[in-house]
Amino acid sequence: MSYQTVLERCEILAGFTEDPSAITRRFLTAPVRQVHEQVGNWMRRAGMQVRIDAIGNIVGHYPGVSAETLVIGSHLDTVPNAGKYDGVLGVMLAIAAVESLAGKKLPFAIDVIGFSEEEGVRFAMPYLGSRAVAGTFDESFLQLKDADGTSLNDAIAQFGVDPREIPSASFRNRKIIGFIEAHIEQGPVLEGLNLPVGVVEAIAGQSKLTLIFTGRAGHAGTVPMNRRRDALAAAAEFIVEVEEIGKNIPGLVATVGQIFCLPGATNVIPANVKCSLDVRHAEDSTRSAVLAKIVDAGKSLAQRRQIDFRIDGRSDQPAVPMDRQISAFLAGAVKEQGISVHRLPSGAGHDAAIMAALCPVAMLFLRNPGGISHHPDESVLAGDVEIALAVLSSLIERLAQEHRS
Amino acid sequence: MSYQTVLERCEILAGFTEDPSAITRRFLTAPVRQVHEQVGNWMRRAGMQVRIDAIGNIVGHYPGVSAETLVIGSHLDTVPNAGKYDGVLGVMLAIAAVESLAGKKLPFAIDVIGFSEEEGVRFAMPYLGSRAVAGTFDESFLQLKDADGTSLNDAIAQFGVDPREIPSASFRNRKIIGFIEAHIEQGPVLEGLNLPVGVVEAIAGQSKLTLIFTGRAGHAGTVPMNRRRDALAAAAEFIVEVEEIGKNIPGLVATVGQIFCLPGATNVIPANVKCSLDVRHAEDSTRSAVLAKIVDAGKSLAQRRQIDFRIDGRSDQPAVPMDRQISAFLAGAVKEQGISVHRLPSGAGHDAAIMAALCPVAMLFLRNPGGISHHPDESVLAGDVEIALAVLSSLIERLAQEHRS
Repeated sequence: MSYQTVLERCEILAGFTEDPSAITRRFLTAPVRQVHEQVGNWMRRAGMQVRIDAIGNIVGHYPGVSAETLVIGSHLDTVPNAGKYDGVLGVMLAIAAVESLAGKKLPFAIDVIGFSEEEGVRFAMPYLGSRAVAGTFDESFLQLKDADGTSLNDAIAQFGVDPREIPSASFRNRKIIGFIEAHIEQGPVLEGLNLPVGVVEAIAGQSKLTLIFTGRAGHAGTVPMNRRRDALAAAAEFIVEVEEIGKNIPGLVATVGQIFCLPGATNVIPANVKCSLDVRHAEDSTRSAVLAKIVDAGKSLAQRRQIDFRIDGRSDQPAVPMDRQISAFLAGAVKEQGISVHRLPSGAGHDAAIMAALCPVAMLFLRNPGGISHHPDESVLAGDVEIALAVLSSLIERLAQEHRS
Repeated sequence: MSYQTVLERCEILAGFTEDPSAITRRFLTAPVRQVHEQVGNWMRRAGMQVRIDAIGNIVGHYPGVSAETLVIGSHLDTVPNAGKYDGVLGVMLAIAAVESLAGKKLPFAIDVIGFSEEEGVRFAMPYLGSRAVAGTFDESFLQLKDADGTSLNDAIAQFGVDPREIPSASFRNRKIIGFIEAHIEQGPVLEGLNLPVGVVEAIAGQSKLTLIFTGRAGHAGTVPMNRRRDALAAAAEFIVEVEEIGKNIPGLVATVGQIFCLPGATNVIPANVKCSLDVRHAEDSTRSAVLAKIVDAGKSLAQRRQIDFRIDGRSDQPAVPMDRQISAFLAGAVKEQGISVHRLPSGAGHDAAIMAALCPVAMLFLRNPGGISHHPDESVLAGDVEIALAVLSSLIERLAQEHRS
């Protein structure tokens, strides 16, 4: 099976959408059934036994000599108005790699998983699919409600599987060699280096904060500049500081993506600004130190301006390092293709970060032209898909060698 | 008639509202009829003949020896959830000053006007009342629609006056000595100086701009800081510059009161920011120069950041200087009360700015505790109202002296 087929299959799956004018396929919506039927057929053609688990993951099992299992996959859900490759490409590459084995028995089985939910769009909670497989699905999630008021529990039941069976979706009691995920980079780094693929070294840790600046409203025409406590001017100074601090730390990204300003009239001095802050780095200690510096900067400028500065919410996710040994095999497979090995952090989260709680994980990134993702213009280069497929096949062979010896 | 009566009357008018839980009295709404009945009674008691003109202004005429007329007044409409004094206090002070004359004939008549519309809330067009009197009412305004889809023409007809008669509301063909308006400052300057009243030197000119920064969206986790074109970071740097430039020019105010950021997700680099800019100064040349400097700063930072910076809309209102001679009489009247004369610009617009197209104008500001206006907490000090009433009476006497001699 060729890389062209991989690309054709991504095109076909793009046709299964909630919205005929865009690619939108949220967790357990109607087009997911069509995806399961189609992907199931492709899995069977590759020699796999297919099942849908209790969280809606599609799992293709390719038997091996032993019960040990290598898991390969990514997710099949999308953000609204998505591209064709985020998640889907990783699943199609995994199926193609298995089909290339042409029925040959390896020392281990391979399970290809198309995770049902990674983006977190429908229930505002990401990674529901991989959490179930990793055994870290929290039962309380079943009470989450979507925008229509449907609970996760009911959505699963309506899809035709049994939410009470979610614990059985876990791979906890199985002997798992590792999890491998191929994914588009969703950033411009490989393109900037002119490289088709790269080896992920870690999934960056992430801190998400909500910040509130409170000053005092006033008439924009009548309150002199030196008598103002302008919440937006304070937030603006803060945003400039965030950018400045972020720029000076290699590998760090810091983003204010959301801002709301009240009362929000052209002729009223802003009294209240709420904004988001997203800070990521592959090293948790660096992230913590930078975040402390940013918060200090906010406090200090707020104090000078007689503005109240408050952290309204904060969540921290530690960095997830990739497995050294599997990543070394992956690097070897990249090198074999004549490609120089570039290791890079993933700034975005992935199912691999969740699967790391279960087993060693490794990730291959494919160059993503323009770094454009979560957008209809998302693309990959056919030649890069060809290389990624060869790398994946070589990695499977290397792991098989390792297990034979 | 005492200043206490003035304050009591402001309380009474506060009871005529569209919303029993707040003071909200928009142009030609039902409570305006109650206001007209009540204010008409007070005007008649002060010796005036009362009429409602074709735009819904209430006009009380106090005859004089000649047909020359001094006009005194302010507006009777309010913003939603208003205070008791913005506009209303000026009309009540005018009636009280006329009542204090106790029927004595002056060399000129006095017309007290309670303008029907100043705030611009209902039809998103301010000064409808004073425009009609000043003869600058544009007939096309009659096609304006309120939020319910009622045209201005129909609203006027439904109120029971004839929109075709609006030209007859104009004072253009009359001999007008001047227009005098007393108003709360709506700012903290007089309070800061510990002064009960101040003499307005000019109504500041104002430029209102809508600015658009366009960068490039991207994943907050995957696009390195040095590859970003973050529209919000650019806008933030701009807002800091606006504040910095504004602070360094005496008497200038520059405000960004509104900001919208797209796509507006915590994990997406902002691609598009729209913000307002409001710049005011008593000298048009200063305002123009500062605005040019601000726009240059925006262009320059946008260019450095590879951001598109665009002015999406702009309106400019020139400053309106108060009449030197009437303001000198007003200053004399203030001094007579033992108050040191402070001249200040008005950063807010007022009916006086419109009436300046018709005749010489002057304004007296009353101290406004906390600078709080357009808010239920809006207040005045009783002692300041007493002083303002005395100043107004003294000003009328000084103008009468002038006309006798």
